[in-house]
Amino acid sequence: MFNVKSPLVVIKVGGKIVEEDATLQRLLDDFAALPGYKVLVHGGGRSATKMAAQLGIETQMVGGRRITDAAMLQVVTMVYGGLVNKNIVAGLQARGINALGLTGADLNVLLSDKRPVREVDYGFVGDVKQANVDVLADLIHRDIVPVMAPLTHDGKGHLLNTNADTIAGETAKALSAYFDVTLVYCFEKPGVLLDENDDASVIPSIDRKKYRELVEQGIIFSGMIPKLDNAFSALDAGVKQVYITSSTAIDGQGGTLIIP
Amino acid sequence: MFNVKSPLVVIKVGGKIVEEDATLQRLLDDFAALPGYKVLVHGGGRSATKMAAQLGIETQMVGGRRITDAAMLQVVTMVYGGLVNKNIVAGLQARGINALGLTGADLNVLLSDKRPVREVDYGFVGDVKQANVDVLADLIHRDIVPVMAPLTHDGKGHLLNTNADTIAGETAKALSAYFDVTLVYCFEKPGVLLDENDDASVIPSIDRKKYRELVEQGIIFSGMIPKLDNAFSALDAGVKQVYITSSTAIDGQGGTLIIP
Repeated sequence: MFNVKSPLVVIKVGGKIVEEDATLQRLLDDFAALPGYKVLVHGGGRSATKMAAQLGIETQMVGGRRITDAAMLQVVTMVYGGLVNKNIVAGLQARGINALGLTGADLNVLLSDKRPVREVDYGFVGDVKQANVDVLADLIHRDIVPVMAPLTHDGKGHLLNTNADTIAGETAKALSAYFDVTLVYCFEKPGVLLDENDDASVIPSIDRKKYRELVEQGIIFSGMIPKLDNAFSALDAGVKQVYITSSTAIDGQGGTLIIP
Repeated sequence: MFNVKSPLVVIKVGGKIVEEDATLQRLLDDFAALPGYKVLVHGGGRSATKMAAQLGIETQMVGGRRITDAAMLQVVTMVYGGLVNKNIVAGLQARGINALGLTGADLNVLLSDKRPVREVDYGFVGDVKQANVDVLADLIHRDIVPVMAPLTHDGKGHLLNTNADTIAGETAKALSAYFDVTLVYCFEKPGVLLDENDDASVIPSIDRKKYRELVEQGIIFSGMIPKLDNAFSALDAGVKQVYITSSTAIDGQGGTLIIP
């Protein structure tokens, strides 16, 4: 249908930035100003934890991942799919962006399997097994901007809590059939740092060889490892480039470029 | 683009039926089995009231309408746009229906003005002023089934709580430019009743003349009056037919047919 692939940027922002009004408004301004086709993927973990506490539901995390029992699934469905997602959509509409808020259940975009119980029972947590983005790609070509919440479904009527980095990665991979995709992971730091205490020590680019070296040297560790694994997996699956950067530089400038 | 209008049914179901699992599953079965193009509009007031209570937020109603302050707006955004909407979407996907959950902010489908303060300050409540359904009509022609939550936006970044009957009516009117629309209002009773205590006394059809007579006779009163006003307003704006019926007869059969 489209002979030449257009550029598309998929931007993932963490919970913190979308949960405070000042940082959210700045993000929406920056995102709205980005030229070309785009997709926004958001988290919302802090709001979910706060809402759960207000409802007397205890938040349990294992290795940075939320244990999602039936009560917590209701909370994340409300907070991610409702509160955070729809406020972003309304904020983008106010900026002239024709946003469309989605979970993975909407348009059957992301189908998951409930994570099998091994050492840990994560509960209603989904591992993406299939992305269906044909309708989404057409909408994007019509200047609709998808805003994706970190929820998927199992095709049997259940929503599943799903890591926002994974949502961004799987969506970016699938959209690579239709677009030249740049994937941008935004987090608290300006990029992958040589010295975790020095924000000026951003590593400008990392390839697989350098990644192995940095892991061996102990410079890359803990939460950065799944981020980089996601990045390389996206590159392997057709994504053109991946940036790891801060949420005040969503165009990737000044961050770390991940290359094969 | 389309020379012959296809039939489309817009079905509005109240909060009660979507808030209890048994009735919700039955509704989703019935709705999934309906042939042809379709749209589902849902309420969720009881769940919102329950969630508000759990959060220590008091629900205030005036004339059956919810007063929506900032805290209550958060609740209805979570409950209508997240919890209720996304569970319906996941339930329809499980039945092979490619559902897409929407508020009026998504795709800018329904733009509202915040209701002016007169005798009552309803807070963040929206009166629909514009419907934009061109993208929606294309999606429906591609067998996507919109599932609409009772929220709109003001185009300035704010979500607004909006009556679900109004959402259904305004959407049905706007879609009449693209489809031959049947609008079905489902509620607790099997239709408009001659005797409110006798479910067998359904009035098979009502036109404007008969409506006036029934109001004068005191047979139609209170909450039924805005429903019928909505129905006639929809007919005036191009909707082909309107049914008022029960949520166990979403095809309108056995209910009250409203004709000009």
